[in-house]
Amino acid sequence: MTFKFKNVYLNDVATVTGPYEKNGPLGKYFDKSYDDMYFGENTFEKGETKLLQESIDIVLSKLKKETTDLFISGDLLNQDVSSNLAALKLNVPYLGIYNACATSMEGLIIASSLIDSKKINNAICSVSSHNCTAERQFRYPVEYGGSKPKVTTFTATGGASAYISNEESKIKIESGTIGKVTDLGITDVFNMGAVMAPAAADTIKEHLIDTKRKIDYYDLIVTGDLGIYGKQILMDYMKEEFNIELNKYNDCGVMLYDLEKQDVYAGGSGPVCCPLVSYSVIINRMLKGELNRVLLLSTGALHSPTLVNQKMSIPAICHAISLEVVK
Amino acid sequence: MTFKFKNVYLNDVATVTGPYEKNGPLGKYFDKSYDDMYFGENTFEKGETKLLQESIDIVLSKLKKETTDLFISGDLLNQDVSSNLAALKLNVPYLGIYNACATSMEGLIIASSLIDSKKINNAICSVSSHNCTAERQFRYPVEYGGSKPKVTTFTATGGASAYISNEESKIKIESGTIGKVTDLGITDVFNMGAVMAPAAADTIKEHLIDTKRKIDYYDLIVTGDLGIYGKQILMDYMKEEFNIELNKYNDCGVMLYDLEKQDVYAGGSGPVCCPLVSYSVIINRMLKGELNRVLLLSTGALHSPTLVNQKMSIPAICHAISLEVVK
Repeated sequence: MTFKFKNVYLNDVATVTGPYEKNGPLGKYFDKSYDDMYFGENTFEKGETKLLQESIDIVLSKLKKETTDLFISGDLLNQDVSSNLAALKLNVPYLGIYNACATSMEGLIIASSLIDSKKINNAICSVSSHNCTAERQFRYPVEYGGSKPKVTTFTATGGASAYISNEESKIKIESGTIGKVTDLGITDVFNMGAVMAPAAADTIKEHLIDTKRKIDYYDLIVTGDLGIYGKQILMDYMKEEFNIELNKYNDCGVMLYDLEKQDVYAGGSGPVCCPLVSYSVIINRMLKGELNRVLLLSTGALHSPTLVNQKMSIPAICHAISLEVVK
Repeated sequence: MTFKFKNVYLNDVATVTGPYEKNGPLGKYFDKSYDDMYFGENTFEKGETKLLQESIDIVLSKLKKETTDLFISGDLLNQDVSSNLAALKLNVPYLGIYNACATSMEGLIIASSLIDSKKINNAICSVSSHNCTAERQFRYPVEYGGSKPKVTTFTATGGASAYISNEESKIKIESGTIGKVTDLGITDVFNMGAVMAPAAADTIKEHLIDTKRKIDYYDLIVTGDLGIYGKQILMDYMKEEFNIELNKYNDCGVMLYDLEKQDVYAGGSGPVCCPLVSYSVIINRMLKGELNRVLLLSTGALHSPTLVNQKMSIPAICHAISLEVVK
């Protein structure tokens, strides 16, 4: 299902990252990066919360705004911990959301709908993830040092916030597509790319049908965090199932790191992976006029360790946002 | 922040519960109840999922509808497991949300906003919780048999769904208030009533200011799951802080069980507690003409076992929905 938005603009964004992201090819684009994984806090969870809070502070200060009408946020921590604590500090009306790594675009769709219908004037939409909190919660603590298969994706560490409103800016949020949950029966907790690729395909197809567009309408299509293998699965799947060639396509998990030099297996993942790339190099290229229309797809594996232990497979979902440069 | 809705109606509701709820004073109002805590499944988590899915099936069959435009759901399980699996089965666009026990009204507010602005025609908003999955995840497995203080609330077991749309019915969703996160520094994981009462007070006050109403505008004000002690804290707090007497007020946690006869400590809690009571006896009394205007407040303790282990306190949030009988 696709919503069209008339007067919704992406006013500014902010990204705060950890050392892996800083040392990757997009390091220079982030607003702030740290060299250690604790971020001056005494636990990883508090560190993740700090990244999220700092991204909010930075986007507000860039726009010289003090507050916002509404805060929509989610993260990978159980109970959306970082988001809840950021909401406590921000002290504005708050909607907590969770669609795993598809959370970023889910937030933008809800906020854009509320702005479009004049219920609010502006909102901050945020997400965060942290490699060490996610590994501990979903698989094994990193200190355990377990070996991993090469299809594994590497949860990105960072906080990302977007300030969106009805005040015109250079980039418009043109439409948003809410995805459905898919499940092709995969139970491998290390192979999230394969879990999520069918959800991405489904949402791309839905978006094109709803908007009556061809795939080449977009200058770039980006998925959130399929990684190098999931990216290939999506390209093959789109070709075989729908006869659609993804020529102008990339994956944020592949773009965030140098897969040859950095020890990140198949590439980045986590809710912050898609906005870290979108809110840095992609927005930058849009502002420079290199890209006019971009379809952002955040891909989420709705992975629950409890259910995997009960021999259930991993469902997935993908939500899309179409960004356009205002002429 | 309060949104007014023009043409949003609560068309029908469905509730499915476990044995404690069946044997409580509202047992006769529920659409379906079971006598054991497994619900024919081999794990508690699959049982909880079944309750949620059945409540969706029942509300759709009551209205002779086959599907819906949008599904919004959340639950207490990490990663919103029951909601994700219900979304997979329902196979419609899905937004996963999480604000702990405040999730039910959060879903209604988002869906009502989308219907009000004509982005969708209808939606199903659901929540679930299960005593045994929640105790295991947040405190200790029930099989452990730990003793508890009397302020403890008892997580309700059930699935509840509301079908809302722009098609006129006897009950209108008149407005919704999105709450802010509060934290008064409580760290006692057994005393959720005290954690949530200040959030409820804050949202009631906001709602009255935004709508320029006095407290006696409503025939009944109900909070979600404060329990018998939290209820008293809220009444005292409203009186002392804002000089507001809560005369026509009750708490769903107190109403759901017979606190004298049933072994449920201070009363019910969990995301499903508020809708189990609201979607049964309260809706019933509205349809019979005994109540015309009701303010429903779902109260959520954003409790994270990880953060409590790190000596952090428990934040809380509360969202409100105003229901009115259509004259």
